[in-house]
Amino acid sequence: MNKISELEQTRHNSCRALLHHLRVNGATARIDLAGRLNLSATTVTELTASLISAGLVREVGGGATKTAGRGRPKVLIDLVPAAGYSVAVKLTLNQIDIVLGDYTGSIVLSRTYKVGTLKLDQASLNALLIERLEKFLQQECGPDHPVIGIGIAVQGVVDTLRGSIVWSYAISARNIAVAPALREKFGCPVIVLNDANCIALAIQQDSEFNNSGDMAVIMLGYGVGMGLIINNALYIGARGAAAEFGHTKYQPDGPICQCGKRGCIEAYIGDYALYRDAMRLVDLPQVDFHHPSDREMMKICDYASSGETKIRQLFEHAGRVLGFGIANLIALFGPQRILITGSGIRAFDFMQQAVRKTVDDLLVAELCQGIDIQAVPWHDDLTEIGAIKSALLLWEEQEFVPPPAAKRQ
Amino acid sequence: MNKISELEQTRHNSCRALLHHLRVNGATARIDLAGRLNLSATTVTELTASLISAGLVREVGGGATKTAGRGRPKVLIDLVPAAGYSVAVKLTLNQIDIVLGDYTGSIVLSRTYKVGTLKLDQASLNALLIERLEKFLQQECGPDHPVIGIGIAVQGVVDTLRGSIVWSYAISARNIAVAPALREKFGCPVIVLNDANCIALAIQQDSEFNNSGDMAVIMLGYGVGMGLIINNALYIGARGAAAEFGHTKYQPDGPICQCGKRGCIEAYIGDYALYRDAMRLVDLPQVDFHHPSDREMMKICDYASSGETKIRQLFEHAGRVLGFGIANLIALFGPQRILITGSGIRAFDFMQQAVRKTVDDLLVAELCQGIDIQAVPWHDDLTEIGAIKSALLLWEEQEFVPPPAAKRQ
Repeated sequence: MNKISELEQTRHNSCRALLHHLRVNGATARIDLAGRLNLSATTVTELTASLISAGLVREVGGGATKTAGRGRPKVLIDLVPAAGYSVAVKLTLNQIDIVLGDYTGSIVLSRTYKVGTLKLDQASLNALLIERLEKFLQQECGPDHPVIGIGIAVQGVVDTLRGSIVWSYAISARNIAVAPALREKFGCPVIVLNDANCIALAIQQDSEFNNSGDMAVIMLGYGVGMGLIINNALYIGARGAAAEFGHTKYQPDGPICQCGKRGCIEAYIGDYALYRDAMRLVDLPQVDFHHPSDREMMKICDYASSGETKIRQLFEHAGRVLGFGIANLIALFGPQRILITGSGIRAFDFMQQAVRKTVDDLLVAELCQGIDIQAVPWHDDLTEIGAIKSALLLWEEQEFVPPPAAKRQ
Repeated sequence: MNKISELEQTRHNSCRALLHHLRVNGATARIDLAGRLNLSATTVTELTASLISAGLVREVGGGATKTAGRGRPKVLIDLVPAAGYSVAVKLTLNQIDIVLGDYTGSIVLSRTYKVGTLKLDQASLNALLIERLEKFLQQECGPDHPVIGIGIAVQGVVDTLRGSIVWSYAISARNIAVAPALREKFGCPVIVLNDANCIALAIQQDSEFNNSGDMAVIMLGYGVGMGLIINNALYIGARGAAAEFGHTKYQPDGPICQCGKRGCIEAYIGDYALYRDAMRLVDLPQVDFHHPSDREMMKICDYASSGETKIRQLFEHAGRVLGFGIANLIALFGPQRILITGSGIRAFDFMQQAVRKTVDDLLVAELCQGIDIQAVPWHDDLTEIGAIKSALLLWEEQEFVPPPAAKRQ
């Protein structure tokens, strides 16, 4: 790297930080950008001019906000929503969702396709995704809607570095490479992420939890996932598949998990595990417990709400198992914050006390005190938002080259 | 930060990378520094000139190595050992070791002081350390030996961000701030690290394991510690006290640990736990099992070496407990490499098979295959070397300002 490219790298990093700040916080005045990004006013003026000429940001002016005591309308800088589009593909059992997001990371529209996923192999999955994406992009995005990134969210274990699905409940085959074929076909960065990592990223990209220190986001639902935020970025591990919190162990000889091994935390507190155990305790529809619906899970919660002791105890035990896993997580990581979300937080009220008590029982106070453990409201589209934003971040990192500064020419 | 200081920051970072490379890899030719650090030859020439004028590096020439086909002796760049000195303080039960290290990170000399540590409080510990350090520096370092950093290694939980000892086996009091008083007295950066973090840093700073990806270094001995290397740097957690691997849980209702809680991995495989259990199985000196000596621990190994089944089974069980902890670590982190060291590896031969088998039994192949789990030879001074090097790194980060480049004046 020569001196000029070192300078360019610094400038590129400043541009990315600026774009990222706008995506997280919305329209911002230049003076506030300078303060937040630790850049001089001159640098911010130069960078925004460059990004305006590249069509990525624009001035949004006037409005009600006025600079105190000056009376002049404050000019803000904001992202141009149509500057580039990102596509999220969510792969779950027998369903593929394709979602279009704009450059701010907001969802524009989404389509759901019912397809048999279990028997797909690498060739047929890639062919299917390419066919659906081509049609989707033709219908929804014209040449005015450049697609600059694709994010693929998968339930299961992925290898983000290789862009492949290692194993997923949705597909019987293992080790399916997805990113290379899509990248070649669509000519943009493609990232494959575990769904919990998408959710962690979506939450971290929200202004409330951005820049708020190291944190773990645990997702309760059909499975139990986790995303780790370290140094304000998603940690994907050396092998691209870290944060399998659901497959940390409660008991080496415990119940069998969907992964085929015994005693995983998920085998106690995943939806299927709770339904399996609840069926033995109270009157419930005798469905295949492997895939209880949200409505069926709500029936268990109704029992708990009406005071049914056996179900209350079931959730308390689930809380203790979750607390055991969180205690290990705290001992290893010491994050500042542990957020719990996912459809499974429907029952979190019945677990919460046992979670905190177990953590406090298992760890010396110095390790666990002051660590914030809280539930975060669950929205079904957090996964897609995370996939969209991760693809945008990847494009800004790998593809975007800021135009040269005018003064240096 | 204005443009000039952004440039200075880049230059500072390049200097630190260069100094760090020399400390890890030893004397290096300019052309190789350029290649390894991704800098232009011109930049390396300018930076080395600047560092030579600052007295930190020097040319070491001639020698047997010659540039292929040229016949001219190769000029190498190396650190000046006397450019600055770093002091390690190791605090263990009733003992304080003070060790002087030179700018290459090598140990120059060490002194051991026997003192009653248990009853020390913040004031008396700080007074004691200041008195011993002043005397040590007067005797061993003249004005020619500038002390540029102090690294304090403690058995137990520390808060590196605040520079305090949270709790340690060596001291009854809790939450003792150490770094602020020493920093004020000696006017140089002071860092407080857990001993396992020092060892992880010492191993990571060795050329064999430098830049080799994310890894965990587990230390077996009296206690069970761990240091995590993420992105080629020590991870100390948001609260400065992460990686308490020994206090992750095997069984919530297991034996009581030195930390006062139940079921910690350390309560099964720490020296005191092994000695406590072995005393019930075979004929051993009935010493206070809380602090078995190395000689007493070797007696247990002798039983295992001679084929004593009960002791073999004890170590196999310890291997299964360690494997359980490692499986959880892999599921959460996915490091590329797990290194095991510490005095406790004296018995690792008897545990190793059970460790690997347990990891393979507990995790799906995709999560654990290809992860390197290996023992690293143990040297008693790894802790001190890590403390010395961490203080040098901190000085380069916080205090060192490279002289301005001549051409920019």
